[in-house]
Amino acid sequence: MDNLLEKINFPKDLQNFSISELNELCKEIREKIIKTVSNNGGHLASNLGVVELTVALHRVFYSEYDKIVWDVGHQSYTHKILTGRRKAISTIRTKGGLSGYPNRQESPYDAFNAGHSSTSISAALGIANAKMLTGEPGHVIAVIGDGALTGGLAYEGLNNAGRFKKNLIVILNDNKMSISRNVGSIARYLAHIRTKPGYFRVKGNVENAVDSLPHLGKPIHRFLSKTKMALKQILYNNTIFEDMGFYYYGPFDGHDLGKLIDVLENAKNIDHPVLLHVLTHKGKGYSYAEQNPGAFHGIASFDIKTGKSQFTGENFSSIFGNHLCTLAANDSRICAITAAMQMGTGLTGFAKQFPERFFDTGIAEEHAVTFAGGLASGGMHPVFAVYSTFLQRSYDQIIHDAAIQKVKLTFAIDRAGIVGEDGETHQGIFDVAFLNTIPNITVFSPAYYDEMYQSLDLAIYHCEGISAVRYPRGKPFFKPYDFESTGMSFDTYGEKDAKTVIVTYGRLFSFVCKAISDLKQHGISVRIIKLNRIIPVDPGAVASAADAEMVFFFEEGIQHGGIGEHFSYLLNKFGYKGKYFLRAITNFVPHATMLQSLNALGLDDKGMVNMILTECKN
Amino acid sequence: MDNLLEKINFPKDLQNFSISELNELCKEIREKIIKTVSNNGGHLASNLGVVELTVALHRVFYSEYDKIVWDVGHQSYTHKILTGRRKAISTIRTKGGLSGYPNRQESPYDAFNAGHSSTSISAALGIANAKMLTGEPGHVIAVIGDGALTGGLAYEGLNNAGRFKKNLIVILNDNKMSISRNVGSIARYLAHIRTKPGYFRVKGNVENAVDSLPHLGKPIHRFLSKTKMALKQILYNNTIFEDMGFYYYGPFDGHDLGKLIDVLENAKNIDHPVLLHVLTHKGKGYSYAEQNPGAFHGIASFDIKTGKSQFTGENFSSIFGNHLCTLAANDSRICAITAAMQMGTGLTGFAKQFPERFFDTGIAEEHAVTFAGGLASGGMHPVFAVYSTFLQRSYDQIIHDAAIQKVKLTFAIDRAGIVGEDGETHQGIFDVAFLNTIPNITVFSPAYYDEMYQSLDLAIYHCEGISAVRYPRGKPFFKPYDFESTGMSFDTYGEKDAKTVIVTYGRLFSFVCKAISDLKQHGISVRIIKLNRIIPVDPGAVASAADAEMVFFFEEGIQHGGIGEHFSYLLNKFGYKGKYFLRAITNFVPHATMLQSLNALGLDDKGMVNMILTECKN
Repeated sequence: MDNLLEKINFPKDLQNFSISELNELCKEIREKIIKTVSNNGGHLASNLGVVELTVALHRVFYSEYDKIVWDVGHQSYTHKILTGRRKAISTIRTKGGLSGYPNRQESPYDAFNAGHSSTSISAALGIANAKMLTGEPGHVIAVIGDGALTGGLAYEGLNNAGRFKKNLIVILNDNKMSISRNVGSIARYLAHIRTKPGYFRVKGNVENAVDSLPHLGKPIHRFLSKTKMALKQILYNNTIFEDMGFYYYGPFDGHDLGKLIDVLENAKNIDHPVLLHVLTHKGKGYSYAEQNPGAFHGIASFDIKTGKSQFTGENFSSIFGNHLCTLAANDSRICAITAAMQMGTGLTGFAKQFPERFFDTGIAEEHAVTFAGGLASGGMHPVFAVYSTFLQRSYDQIIHDAAIQKVKLTFAIDRAGIVGEDGETHQGIFDVAFLNTIPNITVFSPAYYDEMYQSLDLAIYHCEGISAVRYPRGKPFFKPYDFESTGMSFDTYGEKDAKTVIVTYGRLFSFVCKAISDLKQHGISVRIIKLNRIIPVDPGAVASAADAEMVFFFEEGIQHGGIGEHFSYLLNKFGYKGKYFLRAITNFVPHATMLQSLNALGLDDKGMVNMILTECKN
Repeated sequence: MDNLLEKINFPKDLQNFSISELNELCKEIREKIIKTVSNNGGHLASNLGVVELTVALHRVFYSEYDKIVWDVGHQSYTHKILTGRRKAISTIRTKGGLSGYPNRQESPYDAFNAGHSSTSISAALGIANAKMLTGEPGHVIAVIGDGALTGGLAYEGLNNAGRFKKNLIVILNDNKMSISRNVGSIARYLAHIRTKPGYFRVKGNVENAVDSLPHLGKPIHRFLSKTKMALKQILYNNTIFEDMGFYYYGPFDGHDLGKLIDVLENAKNIDHPVLLHVLTHKGKGYSYAEQNPGAFHGIASFDIKTGKSQFTGENFSSIFGNHLCTLAANDSRICAITAAMQMGTGLTGFAKQFPERFFDTGIAEEHAVTFAGGLASGGMHPVFAVYSTFLQRSYDQIIHDAAIQKVKLTFAIDRAGIVGEDGETHQGIFDVAFLNTIPNITVFSPAYYDEMYQSLDLAIYHCEGISAVRYPRGKPFFKPYDFESTGMSFDTYGEKDAKTVIVTYGRLFSFVCKAISDLKQHGISVRIIKLNRIIPVDPGAVASAADAEMVFFFEEGIQHGGIGEHFSYLLNKFGYKGKYFLRAITNFVPHATMLQSLNALGLDDKGMVNMILTECKN
């Protein structure tokens, strides 16, 4: 029963409640989140961890001018519920419903869109400077997890924000986790300061003790005074955050509402950048998520009573991870790298089997690639497994620290193509186009598990320089019983002499196969050219399309700079005189299921059939 | 006279000299560097700063297995001189000569190619792990400046390297500068620890003092003992670097050879990551460079006696900076952002005139874009002035923190196209192709100063979303007296009804104009379509080319994903049936002069004429 929650439409409504009522409210919010995520899937553990923190934030900062910037944004459900979206929360991550992340287009309360990590401090500093320059009132607060603090962008943000002359509040939401357990020195460092709640007390005690010893002889007193000065200087610069120019307060219990409200009220009035260190528990209030926050980080719909999700079984990630283990068992040069995505990229087995060759860099995709470049220059063969959308962060490092070094290394690009419910910040639609700009790179795009094996073998053992294998989220689509993956750079399928040719790559091939049986019934026979190696395009594939009258290219990726435009150019050079039709992605793609999105983009079998029928009639 | 230097062919030869001889050697090296740079241009101040450090490194680490990773690499001249390239140093930065940066293809002593900042710790950690895994002996040393420490990648490197279980040496070459004076909290922090040379001494004193006070009463002694424990714990974690897991030693005088050799010998034997804080002076030993290290960071050839370089006068950067000041004087929303390139991007005037709207982020291109996104979301109009090659680092932030936010902001992309002597790490050949992949972006490519004004006005006042103006290094090429820049999205020039059409953009237009007068003498008349707005391409430009028989596209940028391939696709869609020829860049481009490179790429007037004559004969 949402007895209290139903009275909350906007943050100012929180002013009417006592602390104990607010604690009650937090329970109702938790129930709502658990119910919503159990239906829609989504981020559970991270959202359950910040319920009190979010309530406290909106209790203290309720002006329309106050801006809260949520890092990554996968912890913003309570924020959405409290800011006019209580009812709509049931639509979260569904087509036309609320986004699972903060979205400026969705609500004026969402200060900055997010989805990728470590951006909040930089964005908040920009917003705060804009306020100062325009004279607009209001506070700016960045909420960043300890996991996101492993990203260099967060450090760049701290380094710049520490010089800001006004109030700016950074809340370090420390739950000891990114998605899995947090790694690196900064994680160890936070563990260290986390256990020092007496920090301020100790400082006070030492100073008072020195002052209360006036009866000591002069030399001793001089020594103690010097010590006191040294102590003062040292203690005031005790944390990294103070070294970076912030006032540091904490650590505080992130589930103690009264305390949080007090702390925020105080922080609000400090004319200086402030870092509040808040300790929270991922999954708080739902036992299954508390026990296994990694599994309940991002999750498909599940049964609340049992905590059991739909059985997922094998998928491209697990197939990749298993095959890499097989290769690594026979080849001591193979290393695996992940940027805080061990589970998501299917590397848990590898990490156990080959711990000395497994590297979790934290959320640090730039470092991951430069580090891989170093490993490769020393004779190893690193495989960096990474989601397509996050590899965007390493564009320069792929050019500068991999391609220019002329080393051999491999990218295993997971979640390539449409990812579905996570929406526009997470779509893997750019990797082909941006990798395409980099000289001397080879990219494979398997559609099925057997092609995955073939591609990985080719990438690691038969490519010079940088290679990449890109594969979609989840499982492959339907494979025609009479289609055989050859492991060649392209396959042909369908009617041999047809003058209508469809060129495609990756899992869209399955839709194309469905489309051609449909088209057959309309009297249109079609030849399919399925590219397996998409960069470089095999000249044979171009030659084999060049005698067609109509070529249709379907691409689950951004059009500009993609393979479809490139193929058009290659056909031209080959003297192709027929018509050329390209359907690819031309804009950001909002959240929906994968199939809904592909349908909306005209990239499923129905869209393909419609397009081809229309053009054939013209 | 290179009396000592001529005895050095490889690092091991340094073993034969006494410290005082090595100091003499440093003088000879400095003279050689000053002479070389005065002839060839190059990086002077950074190289003069590390002469002793480099000699000390090669004195201590002379095994072929020891790997020195130079961050940015613009300080590697002494290293090159000592590692088999003493004679060849006179060819540095010239076509076919030595690269101005470390280059694995040039020498086995160059452990990792560089040119961009903040990569060394990550690369060194990769190399060190490879050594551990392969069992190859040798030490790994990263040399990184305090400027490079403002880049997030360096922090990601520290965060990961701090956990390494073996020896790994990071040398912080602290000269208080990036190219200009270093900025941000970390710079202030270094200034703070720089002034504490007594750090270790103080620690020792306090402990000894406490121990030497046994005659005090019990409570006092207990208090002091507790203090001592607290002190110990605090002092051992006194610097950020220790917090990140390193052993920290320093600061040391970076020009005291004997001391440096001692320190390195000690560091070599520590089975743990070590950070050595070394203080150096940029420009050391050449008075003009010492007085003005910013101007002598990267410099064209100059007169040694006067320190005067060739007069450079106005260029695209200064024209941009001046025009932005004019706009900002009338529009309080305009902000300027630079990533440690105030001088290089022409923003010195802006910084003086509008200090509150000027932001130097340090070498932090990711932060710069996300920060700009924040500023823009708060109602300002930020203009981020950045070299093309460094904007590669912000690819994800342009997508995620600018384009997806649907804010208005502008990139002023300097050094777009071939940059000349800095070579492959610095060529601005990717910006068009990677920006082309991003939805809803507008990009202008002015060839002349008046077009620069027009483009900047259009970008700031007539574009929705993200806009960019890209312009080359230095001055424009020749402009035909009868060509008038219209400020339209494309211009036409040459023979109106010619069936041979050349399409191009940016400064190549000048070469095209030269080419067409040449071609006229061969009886070939040519029409030129000059794209001013290159993204999106104006459909009118496509339509106006579609009646040609031959279309030639010349592009000073990477071919895959560039405008030339896109234009081919657009022509196809328009029903173009003629021939299409594209010349663009297909690989990394080594150092040479700009004109030499354009010539080698076939992108000067001669190359164009040859190509067109050849194709017309076919």
